Amino acid sequence: MANQNKTDIGLIGLAVMGENLALNMENKGWHVSVYNRTVPGVEEGVVERFVNGRAKGKNIEGYTDIKAFVESIAIPRKIMMMVRAGKPVDELMEQLFPLLSPGDILIDGGNSNYEDTNRRVKLAESKGFLFIGSGVSGGEEGALNGASIMPGGSEKAWLEVKPILQSIAAKAPDGTPCCEWVGPAGAGHFVKMIHNGIEYGDMQLIAEAYWVMKNLLDLNNEEMADVFENWNEGKLRSYLIEITSNILRHKDKAGGYLIDKILDTAGQKGTGKWSVINAMELGMPLGLIATAVFERSLSAQKDLRHLASRQFLHSHVMSVCNKVEFVKEIFSALYASKLVSYAQGFAVLQRASDTFDWQLNLASIARMWRGGCIIRSIFLNDIAAAFEAANKPEHLLLAPYFQQEIKTLIPGWKKLVAEAMKEELPVPAFSSALNYFYSLISVELPANLVQAQRDYFGAHTFERKDELRGQFFHENWTGHGGDTKSGTYNV
Amino acid sequence: MANQNKTDIGLIGLAVMGENLALNMENKGWHVSVYNRTVPGVEEGVVERFVNGRAKGKNIEGYTDIKAFVESIAIPRKIMMMVRAGKPVDELMEQLFPLLSPGDILIDGGNSNYEDTNRRVKLAESKGFLFIGSGVSGGEEGALNGASIMPGGSEKAWLEVKPILQSIAAKAPDGTPCCEWVGPAGAGHFVKMIHNGIEYGDMQLIAEAYWVMKNLLDLNNEEMADVFENWNEGKLRSYLIEITSNILRHKDKAGGYLIDKILDTAGQKGTGKWSVINAMELGMPLGLIATAVFERSLSAQKDLRHLASRQFLHSHVMSVCNKVEFVKEIFSALYASKLVSYAQGFAVLQRASDTFDWQLNLASIARMWRGGCIIRSIFLNDIAAAFEAANKPEHLLLAPYFQQEIKTLIPGWKKLVAEAMKEELPVPAFSSALNYFYSLISVELPANLVQAQRDYFGAHTFERKDELRGQFFHENWTGHGGDTKSGTYNV
Repeated sequence: MANQNKTDIGLIGLAVMGENLALNMENKGWHVSVYNRTVPGVEEGVVERFVNGRAKGKNIEGYTDIKAFVESIAIPRKIMMMVRAGKPVDELMEQLFPLLSPGDILIDGGNSNYEDTNRRVKLAESKGFLFIGSGVSGGEEGALNGASIMPGGSEKAWLEVKPILQSIAAKAPDGTPCCEWVGPAGAGHFVKMIHNGIEYGDMQLIAEAYWVMKNLLDLNNEEMADVFENWNEGKLRSYLIEITSNILRHKDKAGGYLIDKILDTAGQKGTGKWSVINAMELGMPLGLIATAVFERSLSAQKDLRHLASRQFLHSHVMSVCNKVEFVKEIFSALYASKLVSYAQGFAVLQRASDTFDWQLNLASIARMWRGGCIIRSIFLNDIAAAFEAANKPEHLLLAPYFQQEIKTLIPGWKKLVAEAMKEELPVPAFSSALNYFYSLISVELPANLVQAQRDYFGAHTFERKDELRGQFFHENWTGHGGDTKSGTYNV
Repeated sequence: MANQNKTDIGLIGLAVMGENLALNMENKGWHVSVYNRTVPGVEEGVVERFVNGRAKGKNIEGYTDIKAFVESIAIPRKIMMMVRAGKPVDELMEQLFPLLSPGDILIDGGNSNYEDTNRRVKLAESKGFLFIGSGVSGGEEGALNGASIMPGGSEKAWLEVKPILQSIAAKAPDGTPCCEWVGPAGAGHFVKMIHNGIEYGDMQLIAEAYWVMKNLLDLNNEEMADVFENWNEGKLRSYLIEITSNILRHKDKAGGYLIDKILDTAGQKGTGKWSVINAMELGMPLGLIATAVFERSLSAQKDLRHLASRQFLHSHVMSVCNKVEFVKEIFSALYASKLVSYAQGFAVLQRASDTFDWQLNLASIARMWRGGCIIRSIFLNDIAAAFEAANKPEHLLLAPYFQQEIKTLIPGWKKLVAEAMKEELPVPAFSSALNYFYSLISVELPANLVQAQRDYFGAHTFERKDELRGQFFHENWTGHGGDTKSGTYNV
């Protein structure tokens, strides 16, 4: 047989993520070829180091010649690319195309922009190959021991790669692998992008809960760690809540708690902002994640804040009588805002699915995020259940279970936000979520005035409550503007 | 003289904006050539109609042949393009290049993306021509009677076009033309983009003021119109406040007030979202405008809101004792939030200026917006004055005048937002502004926890309060993760 001594899969790009994925595959019984380019003076001996190091004695074959690497893999070939997103992927594809056989499968496991993946799927298919763009979440740890894997693109490739990808995926608590087919074109990378945005939101929400406890309740680090530990036994049970508790208890080598020594300037690598930008392009509100992104930017303007803090003194004057009650309010604000954030994120996924005809299965996506990735939580079980219901909800917050949940949370949530506003303590994401919720449940909003203004200054027309939808009216507001509708002034 | 019978300027594109600009120029004494393409069956007889219609008897020459049009203009030629943004501009430039003489000046007066303008300035200059990308705000009315004009690009062209552009610009109340040189490359279009975003913010803020008065104070349209009329005599004096008062009093032909018949689903043409996207790219918070953009999206989801409103009943229970006092709180919230919005917008302009080395003059930009455009207001005088001060403020809210203003506004502002939260009434932009302000004046923010989390799950490192800035530390949080810093997992 031609395939007798061939490997099951090839992997290109031996940075830590690539190495760990290769080791993970091998550990699950797959025979793996690996390749890394050699760039004299820049990247040298990468393959040798891996093969003689972490991969020593394992069922992994190293190649420094790309042709030999490709030929070592059983047909139809499966080649996973773990290289930097952007141009390197395109260049690598151009290199591979002449070496492939019809039906071979390329898998991009990097953080590619979904529009690039749209394009690459088409390009590969036009040449007779198959292409998968797959989000891989979980970092180095997940790559080695089980990641959340979100593959999309050429659906014909799925059955071929499914056994391998599911074997290296994390397992949810019920044993299901956190890897399912997402949808066509760039759907996998789009879903990964929204996942990252939600992660930004979750982190900001936890930070606000911490900040309220610290500043309005004067809890110390151990007391706050106790609260998070307690929450981790209930409906908020999740990786991020768990590590927050650990972080708060962590001692600095030099004495004291490390959390109090860490500078409050958050970095970002841009994946959060891309969710927001794409939500805007789709005309969908994603205010909670936008708030989290902006708050990181503002945190980084430390010098400006220092200056401003000296010119505007703000003091918290409240004395809290019932700390236990107040902690419950913080819980309500955190849980309800988290619900809003996921509702917004899944609504963007649904809109993308409708716009691009991706047929996304939201329940399946929620299940994929239950293990391996940073946002893993038991809460995702409830989301999956909500989207699986016979009557699929129009919006996550309208699912019967979450409707009931949020009704019990509203009193504490709004009380907490109102208190924070009075006490001059920023809770931007709690506030953003609450205002979104109020707008969502408003059958009337003041957008009638916005439409009137737009028609007044720009003849943009409006619809009327007493006429059928889809009819647009212009009013001669001033008596001298004429009745011409506008098509030119863009606001 | 070769230029004896030549015209002063050429204008391409006779949609309403182009027609009106040509008439405006002629009215100021300039001799104008106009050209419009002819596309059989699509665009025919445009030039003839204009020349024999609105331009009849005026010092305007119509051309249907682009070569004859170009040759009719005095050298160095000034040619203003009023065509649809995007590809049409590039195509028109390619058509014009072979017909131009060295030093000729192209002016793009459309709503182009500033990055396109960056590219076009370089391209035109590489061929020996000059290029200006100019924001033009004020719609059809402004084009005819005086617009706010924001030119940027090839600075050598400025002295040539200044007399014409300033003559057709609006005049601020003190007589200054609302047109000054903005800066190199796409600076003019960037400034116009931020202007449009600020317009979105202003409209949302006024809508919230209206909504609070209507829902929490039960004021009727005439009473609300009185409030806005009164505000228009004070520090909020502006075009948008003025027309809001007129809108509220406007009767429907069928009886009743028109505002109550207008459907509350706001449209948008995308210029607001571009401000937000570019602020995100620059790493700057622009939360108020983002909120305005998202709120328009949500207003458009009328069916969803209708559904949600039936499942979550919310009632306003407050009875307001002192309406006059409450109106003052609304004023505080509106004025303070508007300050925040402009502060955010100008901070983005400053960041763009620093990033692209544009040397923007923020005072001059504020002055340019005082007439002709939708956001014209007396408030812009104060902003210009703040940026002109000997000690240029680090941030608009830190200018001594605005510092004092905001200190008087805080009590009403925070009280209003807290009340609205309790009463379940959305005030998303008032809230966003207040939370931004609280974060800005916080010397400490909970971003230390965000950094700890990022280091915990992704080895992203952090800075320490007890060490110099620029040093990055990684902690082995779990005792078994190793000390490797991450460069791969991007969050």
